[in-house]
Amino acid sequence: MKTVTSLPELRVARSQLPEPVGFVPTMGYLHAGHISLVQQARDECASVVVSIFINPTQFGPNEDLANYPRDLPHDLALLEEAGADLAFMPTPQVMYPPGFQTWISVEQVTQGLEGAMRPGHFRGVTTVVTKLFNAVEPQKAYFGQKDAQQAAVIQRMAKDLDFPIEIVVCPTRREVDGLAMSSRNSYLTPTERQAATVLFRALSAAKAAYEKGERNAEALRQVVRAVIRTEPLAKLQYVSCADLDTLVELESVHGRVLLSLAVFMGKTRLIDNIILG
Amino acid sequence: MKTVTSLPELRVARSQLPEPVGFVPTMGYLHAGHISLVQQARDECASVVVSIFINPTQFGPNEDLANYPRDLPHDLALLEEAGADLAFMPTPQVMYPPGFQTWISVEQVTQGLEGAMRPGHFRGVTTVVTKLFNAVEPQKAYFGQKDAQQAAVIQRMAKDLDFPIEIVVCPTRREVDGLAMSSRNSYLTPTERQAATVLFRALSAAKAAYEKGERNAEALRQVVRAVIRTEPLAKLQYVSCADLDTLVELESVHGRVLLSLAVFMGKTRLIDNIILG
Repeated sequence: MKTVTSLPELRVARSQLPEPVGFVPTMGYLHAGHISLVQQARDECASVVVSIFINPTQFGPNEDLANYPRDLPHDLALLEEAGADLAFMPTPQVMYPPGFQTWISVEQVTQGLEGAMRPGHFRGVTTVVTKLFNAVEPQKAYFGQKDAQQAAVIQRMAKDLDFPIEIVVCPTRREVDGLAMSSRNSYLTPTERQAATVLFRALSAAKAAYEKGERNAEALRQVVRAVIRTEPLAKLQYVSCADLDTLVELESVHGRVLLSLAVFMGKTRLIDNIILG
Repeated sequence: MKTVTSLPELRVARSQLPEPVGFVPTMGYLHAGHISLVQQARDECASVVVSIFINPTQFGPNEDLANYPRDLPHDLALLEEAGADLAFMPTPQVMYPPGFQTWISVEQVTQGLEGAMRPGHFRGVTTVVTKLFNAVEPQKAYFGQKDAQQAAVIQRMAKDLDFPIEIVVCPTRREVDGLAMSSRNSYLTPTERQAATVLFRALSAAKAAYEKGERNAEALRQVVRAVIRTEPLAKLQYVSCADLDTLVELESVHGRVLLSLAVFMGKTRLIDNIILG
């Protein structure tokens, strides 16, 4: 696997890769969820490019940019093993040089959920993903369903801006006890880690209610709230039952629906979701 | 010359063109200024793609979208003669289908001049140009110096978003009496058309002062104002003496400087500029 840190190096290395090129953008501290994206890209494309960049513009002023976990040697070993061809690891100065002043905004689909809780987050995500798309020029790009709103926003953006790139959304990978894999799980104390299974238990309870025929969206949200309340360490920030594409909150469930939530476990903020229908 | 109106047709036709591909985005009603861009693209590239699209999102609510001049048969004849390979003529529905919600904003360099007079204008320009860049995937794109701020904004955007596209800015083409060529000149009555030479006369007077050693920016703006005042049909909207890249207004002139103005001739708004240094 080749590694590059500058845009000119990337362009040269990219031009030598056989197409189609699959691209997996990451913030590093890779886990089996990221690696499953790389593997799917490996299966579907002639070449695989991965970026590792902790993007400062998608963190709010009171968020965890400074403490975001990193382990570059381990990341590179995992990518090598998974068969990636090229890793792009730019510095913030490469991505945001002095004078930088251009931003991508996706409007409606960024308004709720994470967008409401994290103002400016998606502007940072869409801007860096646009830059990475233009830098890497992939034919396919892979995102995890774990960040469901991000996936919806990127799909909307790619369509609206006519990017010649297929957006592939891959299933959430979970620990054996159901916790969705996330680099931020490393923040959890052992007690919090155990308690964190409540997110998936809450979603699963709502799914069971759905499968028994419950179609009232608020009733499904109430199932989630009730399960989260059973865990004293968990503080629910939001629960949403929304259209999978537009993320508009629903009254009754029909078609493909995103059931999602954000929960604080101590100081650590976790998100998770499942798709119904 | 091939003509296409849909994105799928464009992708197929584009994939068959030898590279490098040069791209000239236009709003149609082509004149010798546009054709000079096509000719430069023809000289520098293996293939030339031209788009004709009157982009509604760059017009303000009180601007001339409905009346913007059009003559598609004449445009296509001119492009054929100039040696373009492919013309892309999408409808507004192709470019902005229902649910469209993604916008590009360039911040500082859009604040003054045209951006100040035409709120939202550059957001429309940068968004449509991004879409066209992603649709056409050119290696080079050609813009006229006549729309000087647009050229600066597109250059900034292409750099900030890492587009793999070289932006080429071509000199303003003028009528024999100095009037900068513009599709909007067709709005002028014969009397206004004659009076409209005052824009270039004003800029030329300031240039003469600069060449005689004047380096005070306000003094150069005053030269422009004084000449415009001699023409009763002309109403000056702004005159600017600014850094060519950042468009920040200057006190004293050094380096490459953009001297630009906007003038109403009756109901018709005209812009022009020259570069000093």
